[in-house]
Amino acid sequence: MSNRGMLIVLSGPSGVGKGTVRQAMLEDEFRDFHYSVSMTTRKPRPGEQDGVDYYFVSREEFEQEIANDGMLEYAQYVDNYYGTPMKYVNQTLDSGRDVLLEIEVQGAMQVRENCPDGVFIFLTPPDLLELRNRIQRRGTDDQATIDKRMQKAADEIKMMENYDYAVVNDEIPNAVQRIEKIIESEHLRVPRVIDQYKKMIGE
Amino acid sequence: MSNRGMLIVLSGPSGVGKGTVRQAMLEDEFRDFHYSVSMTTRKPRPGEQDGVDYYFVSREEFEQEIANDGMLEYAQYVDNYYGTPMKYVNQTLDSGRDVLLEIEVQGAMQVRENCPDGVFIFLTPPDLLELRNRIQRRGTDDQATIDKRMQKAADEIKMMENYDYAVVNDEIPNAVQRIEKIIESEHLRVPRVIDQYKKMIGE
Repeated sequence: MSNRGMLIVLSGPSGVGKGTVRQAMLEDEFRDFHYSVSMTTRKPRPGEQDGVDYYFVSREEFEQEIANDGMLEYAQYVDNYYGTPMKYVNQTLDSGRDVLLEIEVQGAMQVRENCPDGVFIFLTPPDLLELRNRIQRRGTDDQATIDKRMQKAADEIKMMENYDYAVVNDEIPNAVQRIEKIIESEHLRVPRVIDQYKKMIGE
Repeated sequence: MSNRGMLIVLSGPSGVGKGTVRQAMLEDEFRDFHYSVSMTTRKPRPGEQDGVDYYFVSREEFEQEIANDGMLEYAQYVDNYYGTPMKYVNQTLDSGRDVLLEIEVQGAMQVRENCPDGVFIFLTPPDLLELRNRIQRRGTDDQATIDKRMQKAADEIKMMENYDYAVVNDEIPNAVQRIEKIIESEHLRVPRVIDQYKKMIGE
């Protein structure tokens, strides 16, 4: 019902399976998500296509985009830039289609600042809520290992606080189903639909 | 995942079919909603059971509940009080079950003040967004009738602004499905689940 598309940001701690869930969402033939292709300065690997896997650009081009405020989010890893160009995202949203971003937590926080009306979904490891029980039940870990795991859990829970939804990635199809329900519900939120109604009564 | 149940408030303009949608939701055997029974001072009609259709009380008892701040919302129609006793709602939420309220818009706004973390769903007539087109296409109404219909639409859209979600009641099963998706998604919202995670890491 909404005129403009919705920006959906899928993120979570590294190793949680963001990429696999994103892939499963895009393969769902009943849905029409536009996946936002990232831009990078790293060289294409064999088989990778420009505009499909990444937009491959030079370091100078990437830095020009940053200077022009053209990046929705970006980061540097191992001497290469990775990021999301704002132009394609906005064009797609304006055309009325939803855009799916699958990015690291640091990037997601940058997007939150630029697009507060996006839907921010945090994918959580299936054992996060059961972690302490599981460690205690097993009873074989030394204190240093336990502390390290609990610290990692605490960090992940701290990240989660910046998101709208927490989706447990226990099984890929379950996680996908939960995310699709979130997207459908978000499309029914009053702030997303009210303008169309107001337009109808001429306000 | 949440410990406390969620309060779901289903409301909308009169005649939109709130009661029918509520009935269909309660008949869905795959769901476990607790429907909050209203309290009233009107006499039971033949076949109506105390505690099932309503809690039937005297005027004095109802006014005592109001004086004790025991009503989540209430209103007076044709010399009788109707309202939602807070006690049963809170007991059920504390037990971890969701509570469904189906009430008029005035009552819903009172609940919003008392329970800001409830989920407020506005059921809309199927033709609301198409009303102007439909009137113009037909071209048989006089201006007074058109003005009256458009004013009613404007009033309904104004009501909608106070809700979280707008659900079109085009077909009962569709409306029920939308509402059930909203409820499932709302259970995944970070503010509703984060305390459990924090408890696990001992915060």
